[in-house]
Amino acid sequence: MIKTPYLLFLGDAPDPLAAKVAQGIRDWRPENAIGQFRMEGCKADMRLPDMTLAEARAAGAETLVIGVANRGGLISPAWKKVLIAALEEGFDLASGLHNLLRDEPDLVAVAKATGRSLHDVRVPNVQYPIANGVKRTGKRCLAVGTDCSVGKMYTALAMDAEMKARGLKSSFRATGQTGILITGEGVPLDAVIADFMAGAVEWLTPDNDPDHWDMIEGQGSLFHISYSGVTMALVHGGQPDALILCHEPTRPHMRGLPDYEMPSLEALRDLALLVARQANAAVQVVGISINTSAFSEAEAITYLAEVEARMGLPAVDPFRQGAARLCDALEAI
Amino acid sequence: MIKTPYLLFLGDAPDPLAAKVAQGIRDWRPENAIGQFRMEGCKADMRLPDMTLAEARAAGAETLVIGVANRGGLISPAWKKVLIAALEEGFDLASGLHNLLRDEPDLVAVAKATGRSLHDVRVPNVQYPIANGVKRTGKRCLAVGTDCSVGKMYTALAMDAEMKARGLKSSFRATGQTGILITGEGVPLDAVIADFMAGAVEWLTPDNDPDHWDMIEGQGSLFHISYSGVTMALVHGGQPDALILCHEPTRPHMRGLPDYEMPSLEALRDLALLVARQANAAVQVVGISINTSAFSEAEAITYLAEVEARMGLPAVDPFRQGAARLCDALEAI
Repeated sequence: MIKTPYLLFLGDAPDPLAAKVAQGIRDWRPENAIGQFRMEGCKADMRLPDMTLAEARAAGAETLVIGVANRGGLISPAWKKVLIAALEEGFDLASGLHNLLRDEPDLVAVAKATGRSLHDVRVPNVQYPIANGVKRTGKRCLAVGTDCSVGKMYTALAMDAEMKARGLKSSFRATGQTGILITGEGVPLDAVIADFMAGAVEWLTPDNDPDHWDMIEGQGSLFHISYSGVTMALVHGGQPDALILCHEPTRPHMRGLPDYEMPSLEALRDLALLVARQANAAVQVVGISINTSAFSEAEAITYLAEVEARMGLPAVDPFRQGAARLCDALEAI
Repeated sequence: MIKTPYLLFLGDAPDPLAAKVAQGIRDWRPENAIGQFRMEGCKADMRLPDMTLAEARAAGAETLVIGVANRGGLISPAWKKVLIAALEEGFDLASGLHNLLRDEPDLVAVAKATGRSLHDVRVPNVQYPIANGVKRTGKRCLAVGTDCSVGKMYTALAMDAEMKARGLKSSFRATGQTGILITGEGVPLDAVIADFMAGAVEWLTPDNDPDHWDMIEGQGSLFHISYSGVTMALVHGGQPDALILCHEPTRPHMRGLPDYEMPSLEALRDLALLVARQANAAVQVVGISINTSAFSEAEAITYLAEVEARMGLPAVDPFRQGAARLCDALEAI
């Protein structure tokens, strides 16, 4: 578990997109973000107070989170100076970069000398069990996609926020590095050893109050041949009560797989239900989340209405419209 | 790749079942097994010549394979003496035990001093790629099961042997430690990092002659919630042309999951085809392999005939009847 609140390190981000981890924290856990630290030439801005390390510590920040990715996921020498100064100032460090903090001997040495922690959220730090399939108390919702990167994390975060706004019990359960940095905890599922994937998901979504919902962050797709095993473990380890189908309607083929056509929402519904029933016979598909970012407002409204009529389920773009209707569907279960 | 031929180390096996790795090598790659090494009290016998380390080296043995598992998968002090003597005698060591050879400092030191290799087949030693889904040349057959441990490895080995006996091109592709020790190579799929599972299967079954068959060893089951992600990666990474359904008809529930009923062969056929078509639209279910070890000969014949009529596919127990009819079905594709 990563200590909050954070100071968000934006480094020398070449453009706003490079800081999407910081943006995610700013959007979904603003209470975790006390300020931002920008270096010369930084092109990203979270509209948070710019702070020195000392100012942020004085304001209560506990962890400097690397909220930016540069080319190759590397830690540059210019960054390194700031990271070392942060450790000396009393910050823990947290990162989802490929270049692990723990693989940098100078960071390791300073962290040891100062008693600070280095959190590489891309690497599991728990010995997960083998899944036992025992039915757990509480309820679980899982977003499944026709493809990778169609808005599953966004959907789960938006539903979690809406449930909390209604005063209902909900926890976002992160399964990837961005989600883990946003909430400070979770399972980096794509880095777990094969035999323990489903057990890691069980560990992440334990027994809970009967009226509590886990909003589990999806990964990959049952139709994406590179990552489908990870998705399968999420469906069987998560034993969801509710599924949300996620889709991006303008993609020409599966992400990274030019020879693979996108599946239909009907195909996703049928396969996801068939698989999910093995872990929870009562599972239902309750709604559809469409990423309509490629459409105008009018096109989006038309498309969503068509999907809703065709599938007989509420179809929304939570970015445009919020997740209220998806949460209505959850509450109706 | 593990150097052959082997001397099979049976240690102080408490019963014949404990030596099932040695038995697999003896049954399926007898040309790899020059002799056996037994300690006092050993209750297993492969009916191979008992040899000292020096005799086996003189006969050409290159690797001492630990063909036995003792309680907890540990390396006992009594074994350790033999393993060190073997390294000094010029043997490499190979093991599928949980207790890794590389975690024993004295073995590591002697291996280093003598220039010998320690093969822990439970741990991957390759950086596998992310699966790219590109269609490969050659043909692939995958055994899928209603459950774990229903005879998938045996089926693939029996089919590989039958294809070779017919003069056809076939390779058994091992995905578990026993299979890897039998053939000297393969992928320990359950120990691979989640993101690379399907890529590891692609790596294991590369482009080949158009008339060559890979007989891919199955793992887990699409219905076994603990390991289904591993099975999914096999189906999508292997892009099989042919599927064999494997089943054990007397099991009261899924292995290790008392609350989970066994699926039917029909359910396995439908789900496996649905999933496998994503990677290879032409995939077919060509036959059924039943483990009838709990049945008398008469019961087995009756049961197999019933399954064959019901499913409209050849149904055999390859242990009782050989794999000829399954290979006929492959050849008919």
